[in-house]
Parts: sequence; structure tokens; C-alpha cells
Amino acid sequence: VQRYEYGIESSDKGSFRHYMLKEIYEQPKVIKATLEGRLGADYVLDQVLGTAAAEVFEGVGSVQIVACGTSFHAGLVARYWIEDLVGIPCSVEVASEYRYRNHVVKNDMLFLTISQSGETADTLAALRQAKAAGFKAALTVCNVPGSSLTRESDLSVMTLAGPEIGVASTKAFTTQLTALLMLTLALGRRHGLSREREAEIVAGLRALPSQIQAVLDLDGSIERLSQAFAEKHHALFLGRGTMYPVAMEGALKLKEISYIHAEAYPAGELKHGPLALVDKDMPVITVAPNNELLEKLKSNLQEVKARGGELFVFADQDTDFTPEEGVTLLHIPKVHDILAPIVYTVPLQLLSYHVAVLKGTDVDQPRNLAKSVTVE
Amino acid sequence: VQRYEYGIESSDKGSFRHYMLKEIYEQPKVIKATLEGRLGADYVLDQVLGTAAAEVFEGVGSVQIVACGTSFHAGLVARYWIEDLVGIPCSVEVASEYRYRNHVVKNDMLFLTISQSGETADTLAALRQAKAAGFKAALTVCNVPGSSLTRESDLSVMTLAGPEIGVASTKAFTTQLTALLMLTLALGRRHGLSREREAEIVAGLRALPSQIQAVLDLDGSIERLSQAFAEKHHALFLGRGTMYPVAMEGALKLKEISYIHAEAYPAGELKHGPLALVDKDMPVITVAPNNELLEKLKSNLQEVKARGGELFVFADQDTDFTPEEGVTLLHIPKVHDILAPIVYTVPLQLLSYHVAVLKGTDVDQPRNLAKSVTVE
Repeated sequence: VQRYEYGIESSDKGSFRHYMLKEIYEQPKVIKATLEGRLGADYVLDQVLGTAAAEVFEGVGSVQIVACGTSFHAGLVARYWIEDLVGIPCSVEVASEYRYRNHVVKNDMLFLTISQSGETADTLAALRQAKAAGFKAALTVCNVPGSSLTRESDLSVMTLAGPEIGVASTKAFTTQLTALLMLTLALGRRHGLSREREAEIVAGLRALPSQIQAVLDLDGSIERLSQAFAEKHHALFLGRGTMYPVAMEGALKLKEISYIHAEAYPAGELKHGPLALVDKDMPVITVAPNNELLEKLKSNLQEVKARGGELFVFADQDTDFTPEEGVTLLHIPKVHDILAPIVYTVPLQLLSYHVAVLKGTDVDQPRNLAKSVTVE
Repeated sequence: VQRYEYGIESSDKGSFRHYMLKEIYEQPKVIKATLEGRLGADYVLDQVLGTAAAEVFEGVGSVQIVACGTSFHAGLVARYWIEDLVGIPCSVEVASEYRYRNHVVKNDMLFLTISQSGETADTLAALRQAKAAGFKAALTVCNVPGSSLTRESDLSVMTLAGPEIGVASTKAFTTQLTALLMLTLALGRRHGLSREREAEIVAGLRALPSQIQAVLDLDGSIERLSQAFAEKHHALFLGRGTMYPVAMEGALKLKEISYIHAEAYPAGELKHGPLALVDKDMPVITVAPNNELLEKLKSNLQEVKARGGELFVFADQDTDFTPEEGVTLLHIPKVHDILAPIVYTVPLQLLSYHVAVLKGTDVDQPRNLAKSVTVE
């Protein structure tokens, strides 16, 4: 039996050494599949979100997102999108916290769960509990048709990531973000989002598969860069805005598969504590698309450099960071600001993967972790 | 000049080796001062929060808390209190994130800032920005009378912590929590909090100084326990509910003054990633008052132990944790569940202090950090 299973796994992996790498490389394809049939010329076809979607979306006054792990990070990105593009309050919380506290459920609230498997125990329990308290509707972003979360929600937005075997989630995360952005646009249209803004973001969504392919083409450079982490025991990931949850997701990947103690911080909090940790043994990774926060981020980076920290910067090719002693720069192709969290996730996935391979860990089955946490 | 200043500092420290230790020991006194004149027989005298308080509190529909660093952790605790005892939605965000994103400001929103100095640049900028967008009222919890935040807010609840010299905040944090709990009760009274519940928590507040003194009396045991951390480079702090932000604050203290890479997680997220890091080099600290989450926390702790992690448990004396190989237990005197985050902060402050002394760091002036972050 052992041998037989191994045989199947091998063929499924094709020419890839690990499922995780295969799944990282599948992202252009599965994001395309997730967009397929859901975009009009310059808008989201929200009827595909379910026939009840139109009525639900008009009456929504706030959004409560509940999820765990990587899906929680997708929710954190969605919060920035929803408050920016829809203009209604959005809260995000880890399910194990939400379900065990006295929280407030409003009757105009959209209760949004995110889970690859649709069976995450804490998320499911949170949904059932909030339903009893009486929200407007439940929507789930999920990868498994017929799963408990899809059955118990009013609306489901399926990601079309296909089966994800690697315990460290990759393609599930970026397809979740893709689905969440479409959902944000559909909601936004009912709450004052302009047609121009929607059209511009839809164009960005269409370009996403090829943009992610362009990042995958940088794999060789990222593999070389990963060598700097092979002997490290710590790492600090910094970002601002939607890049903060991307930094959290990058840190989680490195934790999960390379066992490096990586932690993410919103860059502006650096001076409120974590700067004390920064020295030559604590490399700092930062994601800096060329947006309005870039200048702020640069001053944070100066602080890190001044304290002997080794810096790794993933930045838009138009930024004027220049590689120098102690600063390693990787240019990322230009991307629309709203789409940046999806694109910038990919180099961090590749970085973690290559570090784990160098360290010789069991990439697809990291120690102590299970793929879906279906018990508490 | 150097010598003269040193002289003044010495005398101010009295018999204490560091300002931080002096400030930890001042907590029963400054919490008493913060409560003084603000409690009736069994309720909070909310007129002391300002003459406009009664009118403001009645019309509040939601609370937005904005703060940085340690004050942000106080805000996270307050969120649990407000949603539980007041029953209105409460959001908490670090100021450097809030100010640079498109957020939603409602006209019935109480905008609550928390800052020891009242001059934290990002927090002040967030207040000014939200004011322009039009909220109901601004309230600040602050330690410095006449500071920018007090001048620019409609209401101020002063903490009476006195000057805090140690860069790592201790007494400012616990007095912030004390003030925030009184504020929660005053708000709650207008939103359905029962007189019985209020009376019970007010009794808890009155007992707080003596309860904190009882924890300070455990200092010798905590000092002995700290030796286990002197050679460690990592630590994981776990908590659930209000103990999660207490774990975050505990991790921040250890980061700031001992330069140990400490990170906090809500205990339920352990299986979603950080468990991969747990081994004998990663001690796990957990705070477990004897509340409804205790049984859940125990199963998390089993996971840590099963993976060779060394466990340090701060638990109510009534819990049935028993010390065994790899598990160090410190009993904390019984405390009302709502008050627990204030009391359980103190042993974590003492732990960080003693670890830093063992490591020989500059406790009161940790590297790279300033007391108040008054620039971005």
C-alpha cells in the first residue's frame, strides 16, 4: 500500500520535487479558473455568486470575517479592500477567538467565512453560533464543493484551486484573495463604487495570471536569495496596508516549512518594540510595491539598516531602492495597487519553499501540522 | 552633567535597581490612585469622565480604538470588555495602519485613543484624520495632563500612573486597563449592563491593588523561574480571550528588554502554523486563569508537551494543573474573570525584568528604542 500511494503521489507531482512547488506553479492556471465565467467586459457578474446575492448585497451594513491560519490572512487583506472599495465596516477575527467570546452580531451583517477545506472546526462553530444570534446572511469562500461550510451558508463563492496536498497553503490562499476581490467589487457596486474604479480593477484581475507567471519566472533569483536564510533562526517580515497581511502570510510559510521563527509586523510598529530585536542574526524581509506607503516604509528600512539588520526587499521595478551592502533587492513587475497583495504573495511562497529545501525539512508534511484542522 | 543626572535617577529609584522594577512595584499604588474618586458604592461615577460624558455615552453606536505598541494591547483587551459588557461593536487598530488606509468613520462612533504620553505621532494623526471624517466624540485614555491627545479630544480619562521612566511600559499599561474598564462600565450602564454585574466588577476593581500586591509577593518564585530563559533565543506566549492580548504584552516586554524573540498567539491558532516551531529550544508561556477557556487551553498545552516543548503555566490556584517533567507551574491568587488581564500582566512583567537582568541588558534603556514615539 505504501508503495502504491507513493506511486500516485509521484505521478501527480509531475516533474516537481514537491506538491508545494507544483501548487505554487499552478497559480496562474487556478486563478484563471477562479475568474472564469465570473467577469463581464469591465465588471463582475455577481449573479454567479448565487441568485440571492443581489438582494443580500444591497442590504448589507457591515461584514464580519471569521477564519483560521492562512484563510485568516486572506480575510485581513479583504478588510482593507472592503473598507476602501465598499465603504462599510469590516471586522476580521480568528475563529477560535470569535466563538468563545461575547461578540456583537447585527441583523444587517454579512457573515463571511473563509476555509480551504470548508471543514475547519472553529470556523464552522463560529458560523453556527453567529447564525443563532441572527445576521443578514452567511457567505463562504471555500475550495471544496459540498463541504460543511458551503452547506450551512446562504451563499458560496468557490475557489477553483483544485486539490491542495501540501500542508502549507499556497494556491488556496491566492484563489481566496481572487474570490474575495470579486466579492468586494460586487458588494461595492451597491455601495457607491464607481464604474471606472470597478473596470480598472477588473482589468487588473484579467492580467493576474500573466503577472503571477512573470513572478514565477523569477524563481531562479529567489532560489539564490534563499541561501542567505539557510543558517538563520529568525526573520522579521514588514509591510504596510494590504502588504501587512501578506507579510504575515510570508512569515507563516517560513515558520511552517522551514521552522525558522519568522514574525510579521506592520512596519509602523517597528519602533514600538521589535526594533530592539534587529541585529545581524535577524534578517528583515519587506514587501514594497510602489504605492503611497513606500516613502514611509523606506524610513523604517533605514532604521533596520542602521542597526546592522540584513535587508531583503521585494519592490516594484519603478522604485528607487538600490542594492547596496546589506540590502538585497528583488524587482517585481509593476502591478495595480489593489492587486498587489496577490502578486507579492508568490515570491514569499517561493522563498519559503527554497529555504525549506535547503534545510532538508519534509516540505509537504511539516512536523506537527495537519492539512485541515477539523478538530479543535 | 552626566553625573548629576545619574544622581537624580539613583535617588528616584529608591532601593530599586532599575526604574522598571520600581514602576512594576508601584502598580498597587497607582491603580488605587486611578480608581480614587471615581467609584461609588457599587458603580462608576461617570461624571468624573467629564460633564459631556453622559450625553456622549448614550448615543454611542460603536467604538473605534486606535493606539500603538503597549497601548494597542490595552485596546485589544478593552475590545473584549466592550463587546461583552456594552454589547456594541468595537474595532481596534494600530495607528500607523489606521491612518494610511481608507477606513469607515460612522457619526455615532466613539473614537478612543490610548497613549501614555499623549504625544504618539501616529495616534494623534489618526485622531485628526477621523475627526475630519466626523465621528460622535473623541475620548483619550492618557497619562499626561495637557498633552496633545487630551487637548484634541472631547473627553479624557486620565491614568494616574505618574512619570514612567523605563522605556518598557508597565504601570502605564495596567492603569490604562483600569481606566478602560471603568469606561466600559460607564458605557455599559447606558446599553443594558445590569446593576448586579456592574456592582460585582466594581468590587473587583476595589480589590485590584491588594490582588496585584499578592502577585508582587511571588517575585522570588518568578525570579527563580526566569533562569530557564537566560540561554533561550525564542519564546511563545499563548492565551485565549482577554489573555491573548496579555500574552502579546508579555511577549513584547520580553522582546523589548531581553532581546529574546518572543511571539504571542491566540492558543487556538497553534495548530494552524506555530506548532511547527515548538521543540525544546522554544519555551511556551501560557496564562490560564480558571475560566471557561481553561479546558480548551489544556488541550493546546498537551500538544506543546507532546512535541518536547518546555511549558511555563501561570494559572489560578484552583486549576488542577500539576507540575511535572517539563511543566513549571506558578499559582496566581484567584481573581474575577473580568479583572484577570490586569492581574496576569504583572507576573509577565516580572519575568521579563528578571530575564533581562540575567542577560545583562540595559533594562531601562533597551537598544534601539525610545520612550515615546513622537515622530513617525
